[in-house]
This record gives sequence, structure tokens and C-alpha cells, in this order.
Amino acid sequence: MIDYPGFSFEVTARDPKSGARTGRLTTPHGTIETPNYIFCGTKATVKNLSPSQLKEARTDIVLSNTYHLMLQPGADLVEKMGGLHKFMGWSGPLLTDSGGFQVFSLGEGTMANEIKGRSGKGHDNRNLLEITEEGCVFRSYLDGQVIRLTPESAMDIQRKLGADLLMQFDECTPYHVDRDYTARSMEMSLRWGDRCLAHFEKNHGGRQALYGIVQGGVYTDLRRTSAEYTADRPFFGTAIGGCLGGTDEEMADVVRGSAPYIHPGRPVHFLGIGRIRDVFTFVRMGIDTFDCVIPTRLARHGTAFMRGVRGETVNLKNARYRDDASPLDETLGLPASAQFSKAYIHHLLKANENLASQILAQHNVATINRLMREVRGAIPKGRLDALEKEWLGL
Amino acid sequence: MIDYPGFSFEVTARDPKSGARTGRLTTPHGTIETPNYIFCGTKATVKNLSPSQLKEARTDIVLSNTYHLMLQPGADLVEKMGGLHKFMGWSGPLLTDSGGFQVFSLGEGTMANEIKGRSGKGHDNRNLLEITEEGCVFRSYLDGQVIRLTPESAMDIQRKLGADLLMQFDECTPYHVDRDYTARSMEMSLRWGDRCLAHFEKNHGGRQALYGIVQGGVYTDLRRTSAEYTADRPFFGTAIGGCLGGTDEEMADVVRGSAPYIHPGRPVHFLGIGRIRDVFTFVRMGIDTFDCVIPTRLARHGTAFMRGVRGETVNLKNARYRDDASPLDETLGLPASAQFSKAYIHHLLKANENLASQILAQHNVATINRLMREVRGAIPKGRLDALEKEWLGL
Repeated sequence: MIDYPGFSFEVTARDPKSGARTGRLTTPHGTIETPNYIFCGTKATVKNLSPSQLKEARTDIVLSNTYHLMLQPGADLVEKMGGLHKFMGWSGPLLTDSGGFQVFSLGEGTMANEIKGRSGKGHDNRNLLEITEEGCVFRSYLDGQVIRLTPESAMDIQRKLGADLLMQFDECTPYHVDRDYTARSMEMSLRWGDRCLAHFEKNHGGRQALYGIVQGGVYTDLRRTSAEYTADRPFFGTAIGGCLGGTDEEMADVVRGSAPYIHPGRPVHFLGIGRIRDVFTFVRMGIDTFDCVIPTRLARHGTAFMRGVRGETVNLKNARYRDDASPLDETLGLPASAQFSKAYIHHLLKANENLASQILAQHNVATINRLMREVRGAIPKGRLDALEKEWLGL
Repeated sequence: MIDYPGFSFEVTARDPKSGARTGRLTTPHGTIETPNYIFCGTKATVKNLSPSQLKEARTDIVLSNTYHLMLQPGADLVEKMGGLHKFMGWSGPLLTDSGGFQVFSLGEGTMANEIKGRSGKGHDNRNLLEITEEGCVFRSYLDGQVIRLTPESAMDIQRKLGADLLMQFDECTPYHVDRDYTARSMEMSLRWGDRCLAHFEKNHGGRQALYGIVQGGVYTDLRRTSAEYTADRPFFGTAIGGCLGGTDEEMADVVRGSAPYIHPGRPVHFLGIGRIRDVFTFVRMGIDTFDCVIPTRLARHGTAFMRGVRGETVNLKNARYRDDASPLDETLGLPASAQFSKAYIHHLLKANENLASQILAQHNVATINRLMREVRGAIPKGRLDALEKEWLGL
């Protein structure tokens, strides 16, 4: 048994019609209500947004990526600067992943879609030099340096970074690998999980909590084995990772098949998934937290999340917005979403002015935070179906 | 005589030791104290900064560029959207230039240094098709469209944009042209000034004021002729434009030679000049307002203006800042300059994260605004020399 002082998770209400639940997740850097959304601050910054802009958008929690930070500026430097909270100026709860996902996805996120089954391309992982029981060896995408990452070093790096919520090191298998490879990989990830727990237990400073990760690809029986094994181990939380299939339906089937075997008293995080429709689908299966780069990535491409719009988003680059004097969303309670016209944002995008990314990133983050607040409000009342229709314009 | 209702300029104090003066410049969008600095919002946005970030940095006034806006999104669109103040969300005083500078500098600012005499390159103005007494014809850098700009159309465009302070249309001659060309060009600019005044008088809506521009290259007698002519015409203010020489000394000589002939009761704007050392040099010659892109341009290259640093700036990309836990400047009163360490900004720059530009742009704007406040405080006390030493680390 590992003690997680300063951490707790309690379920506060349940949807009478589905597996959705609301909860309260407490960390040494504050308590957040769940379901909630963890915004990606890959390189110790949520792209184009300062911590004060994140707070103005009512953000509760962010994450940062171990893989990127270990390469630049390095975990030792972040530790020397007082840890990630202080370094990036974020005083609220913070999560780091284990680095595995990026190592196995070529280090630049380019394989992310492939791992999620969204591409037919092969697993062209040129920077990954070796995967063994010990761990993996890869080449830095920055300078070609050869780097070894093991369950133990992933724990050490995350300890130095100092986030509240940590992830075990796991192998993240892509879509195209067969059942046999997926089974062997999942089993190795379980053993890596045990090594992470053992190393964490020896070294943790009492201010961090560790999540186990459920793997098993698209194979429901493997997911079940992984979920049960993870539930048996003294992790604080559970994450769902790896390949989940090539379609929304397959992804839903995989999660639906794993959910019953996940520890019911622990917070459940869904790694890397987070469109508006995904939030509605997966809170019903008991997901407590989501993360995805899309709120800020879409912003950089001129796209805004919108409540009540079929397809979730509008693209401000579209010529129809050229002379649209209306603001993005006056009902959001965010100054940037109320004070600039769509025509102005359209102009900034045409002129390649970065202020557009800043406005849209803050708008998207605020819109997703509003979504999560409304989802939390709807769950105890059994109103998720009605809310989903309102949000998705159905 | 043209009436400029809602506008006024009064000198409030004079430096006992130089030609420096403090003043109060009133526009329909507010009053600013002078000397002051006008930050460049080229394409209707000060790069990387929202209006609220500008205000937090204590900005009083910004400018936008007619040339860029006439091409994208177009003056008619800006007018339809309620004018530039409303379009860009800036409620304070606003200036637009006439478009001439960019037309004559290739349209992308690449010739700016050449015009200022800072480069030996020839005047490779491929987009400028024709300069005649009527005006000029050039090719849009965006889509190759052939566009005619005349004194009258420059006034019409600026009327539609709706800034408070407008500039006459002038020819901006580069460094290498000879005295003869410079003289003929200056004389044409004076005639263009008269046409601007005539057109302005017929069409203005009573909420804008027009500046004449003193040209004449590096030739003091031509500058004097231009200054006297401009002083004789019913402009609201005077701007100093064009080529001022190849060195700081030459630039100072040219302005020193023109200053006595500039109308003493009108605000004097120095176009496109604005390093910290320039502010000290030229307020002593009676300059009331400056503008320059360098506060935000330097920010994009990792460079911060710093009070008391020899050379004015530090470059945060420098490896010495890798583990520097100190903030940029805790004394500035700007949250961003106090809350992020130099090490963090160094990391953001290495990681190509745009938040670095945002932090540094706001820091640089706030630092220049502090400079101008301190300059205004020093002038009545005859303390400019002492203040200059403090700022430039002398």
C-alpha cells in the first residue's frame, strides 16, 4: 500500500441514466471538480496562453509532457528552478505524462493519429532505437543524442519535474500491430507499472500521486486483464491509454469493454482524447478527466469551439466571416470572446497575426471549461442527453 | 485655416537646459501627456499584444499602417466595422500614417533601414511602378494587384480608417538619392501636402487632425524649406520623416538643423525612430512623440529593453540565462515582468513557444512607457542628463 498524503478522490454524484459521475479530486495544489479537462502545456506552456489568461478562462488543471521537458530544458534544470509549478507560473494542480507516448510516437506527435488509429501509415519510428524489458532507447529529436528511458528513470524525471499527478511508464502500441504484439506489450507495461510503483514508493516526496495506465489496444479481453491488474496495484488513479481503434465506434467499444474492470474508487483519466462529442460519450462510461491538444491546436488554425454548433467548431478563416461584426460568444463570460468581432479575428488570421491564436486559444479553453461545468451540473440531474443536444446542435 | 474641434496641444513645461518640453495632446479619444511613444499596430494589432495587455503595460497611444490596412482587410471594411478603434478594440488615441513610407520602401518594411540610411543596398523597389506629380502606382505585395495612391486617396483611406491623428501623403526618399532628386521630391511632397489639406478640409468629419511631414533628406537647407513651408500651412501637427542619414550623428544633425523652423506650437512627431538613446537625444530637440516597431520586433527575437543596462537591451536567448531564476524586472510594476524567471523565458525561446514573444513584447512596451513617464518627470526639473545616465547605464 502506498500512502498518498494530500491527495483524495471522492465521487459526489452519479448520473441516474449512465455511468457518469461527478467527483472531487484533491491535490497538494488544490481541489478540482470532475469531470474536468486537463489542458496541454506540452513544453511547460499552454501554447499562446499565460497562466493568468488560463485562469481568466477558468482553467482548473493543466499537464506538461515529460518527453519534451526532459530534452529541453531538462528535468534537473526544472528541479533547480523550483519545480514545474514555479517554473511555468502555474499554481494549480498539474499532471505530467511518463514520456512513453511521445517516445513511441516518434517524439514529435506526428504518430499520435496513427496510434489512435486515424491513419493508415505504417509505424515509421526512426527515432526509437530499441524496446526491451529494461526500457527503451531513442534519439532526441532536438540533437540526435541517444537517450534511455526506463520505468525508474521516468519516475525520477517526473519526481524532479514535481507535478501533482504522475503517469506510469508504458509502451504505447500503434494501431497496426497484431494481437500477439499487443498482448506481450500490455503485459510488459504491467511489469513496468510494478517497477514504477516500486521506484516511486522508495523515492517519492509525499507530494505526488501515481496513475497506472490501462493498455491492450482494441482487444477487449486484453483491456480487461490490464484494467484488473492495474486496479490490484496501489496506484492513486487509472488512465486509459494506447490505441483505441480506427473509428469513434471502435474507441467507444474499447472503453465500454474496459470500464467495468477499472478500480471504481479511483479517478479515471482518458489520455489524449477530448473533442466535445468525446466528452459526452466518455463521461457516460465513467471518465473523470480528459486531455487533448485540440483546444489550442485548432486555435492556431483559426478554428473556434462553439456551443450549439453542429460539428462543434467554426473556422474563422472562412470568407463568410470577413464582415461579420458579431463577437465569438458574448455568453461565455470571457472578455476576449465578447470584445473582438469575427471580422477582426478573420482579418488577424489572413494577416498572420498571432493575436488570433491567442484570442482563439483562450476562447477554446474557456468554452471547454464551460462545457465541463455544464456537464458537472447535468450529471446529478440526469440531464446529459439534453445537454449533449444543446452543445452539438442536434 | 482648418478647425480641429476636439483637438488641442499645449506645452506644459520646458527643460531649462535643452529644447525638451512636456505637453498635453488632446484628441477625441483622450488626452496623452508628451513626450510619449506611439506603439506600432501595423496590421491593426500591436504584434502579440491585446488591447488589454497594452493597457496593463500603461500604453497611451498606438498607430496603425494605412498601406497594410488598405490591402488587407481594406479601408471600406474597416469603416463598415465601425472604424479602426472599434475594429481593433483600442479606445484610446490612434494615429495612421499615409501609406507613403511603405509604398516607397517596397511594401514590406524591408527597405526601412535603407531609407534610414542603415544599409548600402540600392533602391530595389520592384513593386513601385510609377511616381508622378499625381501620385504613385504600385503592386500589392499580397496579390500583385496594381494600386494607385494619391494625396486625395490617402486622405480618403485614412478618413475611412478613422484614426485621430492622420499623416499627409509624402514621398519618402531613400539614402542614396542625390541632392537634386531629394529637392524635387521634397517640393512635390509639399504640393502633395497642400492637396492633402484641401481634400481633408472638404471631407473631414471633424474628428480627425492632420500632420504635415518635413522631408529634405540629409540636406539641412532642404529640411529648413520643408519645415517652414509646413509651418505655414494649417496642419495640426508636424512630423519628421524620410532619410535622416547613415549614422546617429548625421541623424541628430539633420533634426537639429530642422527643429528651429518647425511650428513651435504644434506637436512634433518623429516617424519610425525610437531606441532608448534616441528618445533622450531627440526630446532635447523638441520631439513630442516617437514611434518605432522595435519594442515588439526585438521581443520576437528574444530581446528585452532594460533600464540601466549599457546597450539598452539583453538577449534572453543567451546561454547565461539558462538557469537564471531572477525575473526580468520586478520594479516595472508589470506582472509578466515580475512573475516569470529569465530561465523560463530562455526555455520558451529555445522551445519556439510564442508565449516568450508575448511576455517580452509586453515587457518592452511597459519599459518604454516607464521611460517616457520618467522623461516627462525629468524635463521640468532639468534632470534629463542624470536620467539618461541611469537608463543607459553610463
